[in-house]
Amino acid sequence: MIRQRVETLRKYMREAGIDIYLIPTSDFHESEYVGGHFKAREFMSGFTGSAGTLVVTQTQAGLWTDGRYFIQAEAQLKNSGIDLYKMGMKDVLSVEDFVIENIPEEGKLGIDGRVINSRLGIKLEERLKEKNASISYNRDIVDEIWEDRPALSCEPAFLLDIQYAGKSRKEKLEGLRKKLEEEKADVFILTCLDDIAWLFNIRGNDIPYNPVVLSYVIITKEKGYFFVNEGVLNTEIKEAFQVDQIEIMPYDAIYDFVKQFSNTEVVLLDKGKVNYAIIRNLNPDIKIIDKVNPTTLAKAVKNEVELENLRKSHLKDAVAVTKFMYWLKTKVGKEEITEITASDYLENLRREQEGFIELSFDTICAYQEHAAMMHYSASKETDVSLKPEGLLLVDSGGQYYEGTTDITRTFVLGSIEEEWKKHFTLVVKSMLNLANAKFLYGCTGLNLDILARGPLWNLGIDYRCGTGHGVGYLLNVHEAPNGFRWKHVPERNDQAILEAGMVTTDEPGVYIEGSHGIRIENELICKKAEENEYGQFMNFEMLTYVPIDLDGIDKQYLNSTDIEQINRYHQMVYEKVSPYLNSEEREWLQTYTREI
Amino acid sequence: MIRQRVETLRKYMREAGIDIYLIPTSDFHESEYVGGHFKAREFMSGFTGSAGTLVVTQTQAGLWTDGRYFIQAEAQLKNSGIDLYKMGMKDVLSVEDFVIENIPEEGKLGIDGRVINSRLGIKLEERLKEKNASISYNRDIVDEIWEDRPALSCEPAFLLDIQYAGKSRKEKLEGLRKKLEEEKADVFILTCLDDIAWLFNIRGNDIPYNPVVLSYVIITKEKGYFFVNEGVLNTEIKEAFQVDQIEIMPYDAIYDFVKQFSNTEVVLLDKGKVNYAIIRNLNPDIKIIDKVNPTTLAKAVKNEVELENLRKSHLKDAVAVTKFMYWLKTKVGKEEITEITASDYLENLRREQEGFIELSFDTICAYQEHAAMMHYSASKETDVSLKPEGLLLVDSGGQYYEGTTDITRTFVLGSIEEEWKKHFTLVVKSMLNLANAKFLYGCTGLNLDILARGPLWNLGIDYRCGTGHGVGYLLNVHEAPNGFRWKHVPERNDQAILEAGMVTTDEPGVYIEGSHGIRIENELICKKAEENEYGQFMNFEMLTYVPIDLDGIDKQYLNSTDIEQINRYHQMVYEKVSPYLNSEEREWLQTYTREI
Repeated sequence: MIRQRVETLRKYMREAGIDIYLIPTSDFHESEYVGGHFKAREFMSGFTGSAGTLVVTQTQAGLWTDGRYFIQAEAQLKNSGIDLYKMGMKDVLSVEDFVIENIPEEGKLGIDGRVINSRLGIKLEERLKEKNASISYNRDIVDEIWEDRPALSCEPAFLLDIQYAGKSRKEKLEGLRKKLEEEKADVFILTCLDDIAWLFNIRGNDIPYNPVVLSYVIITKEKGYFFVNEGVLNTEIKEAFQVDQIEIMPYDAIYDFVKQFSNTEVVLLDKGKVNYAIIRNLNPDIKIIDKVNPTTLAKAVKNEVELENLRKSHLKDAVAVTKFMYWLKTKVGKEEITEITASDYLENLRREQEGFIELSFDTICAYQEHAAMMHYSASKETDVSLKPEGLLLVDSGGQYYEGTTDITRTFVLGSIEEEWKKHFTLVVKSMLNLANAKFLYGCTGLNLDILARGPLWNLGIDYRCGTGHGVGYLLNVHEAPNGFRWKHVPERNDQAILEAGMVTTDEPGVYIEGSHGIRIENELICKKAEENEYGQFMNFEMLTYVPIDLDGIDKQYLNSTDIEQINRYHQMVYEKVSPYLNSEEREWLQTYTREI
Repeated sequence: MIRQRVETLRKYMREAGIDIYLIPTSDFHESEYVGGHFKAREFMSGFTGSAGTLVVTQTQAGLWTDGRYFIQAEAQLKNSGIDLYKMGMKDVLSVEDFVIENIPEEGKLGIDGRVINSRLGIKLEERLKEKNASISYNRDIVDEIWEDRPALSCEPAFLLDIQYAGKSRKEKLEGLRKKLEEEKADVFILTCLDDIAWLFNIRGNDIPYNPVVLSYVIITKEKGYFFVNEGVLNTEIKEAFQVDQIEIMPYDAIYDFVKQFSNTEVVLLDKGKVNYAIIRNLNPDIKIIDKVNPTTLAKAVKNEVELENLRKSHLKDAVAVTKFMYWLKTKVGKEEITEITASDYLENLRREQEGFIELSFDTICAYQEHAAMMHYSASKETDVSLKPEGLLLVDSGGQYYEGTTDITRTFVLGSIEEEWKKHFTLVVKSMLNLANAKFLYGCTGLNLDILARGPLWNLGIDYRCGTGHGVGYLLNVHEAPNGFRWKHVPERNDQAILEAGMVTTDEPGVYIEGSHGIRIENELICKKAEENEYGQFMNFEMLTYVPIDLDGIDKQYLNSTDIEQINRYHQMVYEKVSPYLNSEEREWLQTYTREI
């Protein structure tokens, strides 16, 4: 089937005189996760991971993806005729280099200009000049092949009350316009769905798990323009937007709308986010200030109301996950439990919590070797029964009116190998080592990453991903510009200075292919500690209140500091969560948060 | 006297139509330390610090210096008519901004173009355009005023034998020319004295503590040009250079020599290093590739012979410092010892070591509150007697044929406060924490710095400097491009990826003004550890073999990992150093390297 689709694509390419066709994984908004309508790369390749680019020529087809997906991609691409290109590995060409190497002189690269960001598009355009080649960006060939393509999502939107948002739309717009003034910009083009949701205090349901509204926004000094399917807006929203001088326009209208700006206007936008088609529709002489959206930093620094709400949502979430842990550890081997039924059980516990809306991402419930795949998702084909032995990794989270949660725990279901205990213990040490950091203001995740990674590096083990990512407030579970990572990756924009109010995950892990996977993840609020002659010190408050399975801990791998940190954490967990448990659960929790 | 000099300068300025004259602190090579001939700023202002810029107009005179020197500069500028501008303080103009603000329309800025680097010179030039002003860079007015100016140093040079250098001049030139080819450059202009000494396997004595030869170098595809006072070269050197096609030219001849390159030639140079006069003498249409000198990285990665030699020189140095420690700790309070006599005693112990040439920098021997000044140097006025109490910080090093050493130990001379023990213990923990790091290839000092700084940050204490710097091989004790620092400072060029063979110091500290200072410094060789599916792991070998004073350690601040690291280090120290001690010293060493 995949082979056939690729062949059809090749036929269309030949007809259109296109030599190479690129199918990235993106919607028109550079969203990390995309709705069904936008899964063109999955449709064309069969690979279901959240990141990857398919490149097709008349003789070759390749899929580029990163370390998280090597194992999964290898399996899913089998017999597809598509080669796997492992990004970041030695001697593996980048997509760009592959394109430049394979495009003929005066050739044509085809791509839907709406699903690639301007920075990449312009860079490709520049490099293609080496071969006198060009980009054709106005045609979405996949759309012509994909007969039963899902329609664009148009789920109803809702306003987020000030008791949850903490800051009014008016106030946010004022702050934004002040930034525009500072930048001497007349127009701001915003296409990031989560930034739009934050700015307008609006939420929706257009991407699974990400409560955003498919839309674009343009802000000028006096007015706002909201490009959206009007059908998703109720009267309350329309009235509220009118008050704030925001005009509703059809979703697609932005492409013509941007053509009207004259070259005397100064436009602020983020070329890493705004798509290539929009940039190409702007007057080519217009002055563009290419910067990270001011909304991105503003959104990342959670206000006091948001932080107080987050503590509440995380407590609810902790109650659900702790009850799940109790159930899992007491019932495994006695009842039939599979990866999928365990996920469902946990989801139901979350649904019982007041203010729960939906999951914040597809639960990863991965038993034994499945857990070595960082982003495993159980399907009917892969689902297995849990036995009273080995390790179960559960990475899950919820969307609550009081915020977004993201937590991973790895549970010991029975006896495990000595080596696994070592891994488990060092992952715990790593996570707490970072969570307990104190540092001077000015540090970024680059400075701090080794606190988590170091204990595993000492063993000669690495996890091939960042240590943590920013988390939205009732928004995307992955949010820029904060994060923990040891190598600077410019396009990820996750190396901002850690500001008080930022929320970041801390999730080191060990992944041994074909054997097991361990990840322990807490969320951290960055806070101000003391200020003295050396500067402003910062530290973290842990937002996650769920026991770390003591059955996985072997004290011989811990020093006194580590042990103290585990005990201090578990004491907090017991204090916070125990009031919400029944007596059996509470007794059990006492054992599982005991001093070691 | 200073007033008179400034007035004379003003007279010359009027005659030459110069509105502002700039006198920075540099030689013609952007050396960190400079010989007597180059101390023009000191001559004109009376300020003796190692960093500062004097700016003179007809009505104003100002000296800009940084935080290290505010107190000293204030005292030395008294009644000089020169105002102090405290760099980095709020509302203090930068030199550049002062110049732009004070230069008249179409005015002229005077500077000796040889003592400012091209990057700064070009930046000034650009900004002066705002006022249609220009730079006059061909005249060194101070030279005309300074009657008894010391002559340019012209100390004899010597060849460094292959048994010390490990790599022949020919091989180094071949490597360099390969780099030129890669960069598609025809000419390489090199003005850094330590890079020249490394490239040519030559050493000299033209800057105190830095065994370099005042010279410039130009390398083309076929030939080398060595601009140097021919009198410093012996026949052996001249013959050797002839073999390698290196032509000897007069030191000053470079300024005319560079005029001959045509605009079809491509020149590789580092604008942050090559002086402004050289750049201005180049054909203005010539293509310049502005990059860090390839010699800088090549020099930093020590070869196997250099590394093996370094182990030897560090052992000799360790014997000297250990003997010093024994003497100091057994004699203090019984004999009269001062900061200066202690320094001298240590210098003599170093001189007894075979292959010792000179100190690698002015010894810092600082008792009690003196040690809170990071760069204290004892003088007759400040020298104090050591009492059997408190802390003595000794930062010192030697130049040996077998390499350069740099070590700091802080010694406990008797009873000290509890708080000081806490500081001492945490500095030791910090130093060893970094020294025992294991990390993936690709890390820079930015990633690792927190391993040393973290334990002090946990206390709310910071040292306001980098954690460590690269060290030369029988060259400058401060050497780019490796280092440990948490904040990126582009002009320092010390954030290179840590390569196997790089040598870097590891020297965290605590400095409490008016009270005490503690620094413990080891040198580290970066080495390859295992390579596996995660990549190439790296770690450090400690090059410094001197006990850490156990009298300063309080175990309550250490965890089991810290204690193990101290014990392991001391075991190595005993094994290496004890064979070179007499029986009394050996017995003492046993106690001072005991397990804790």
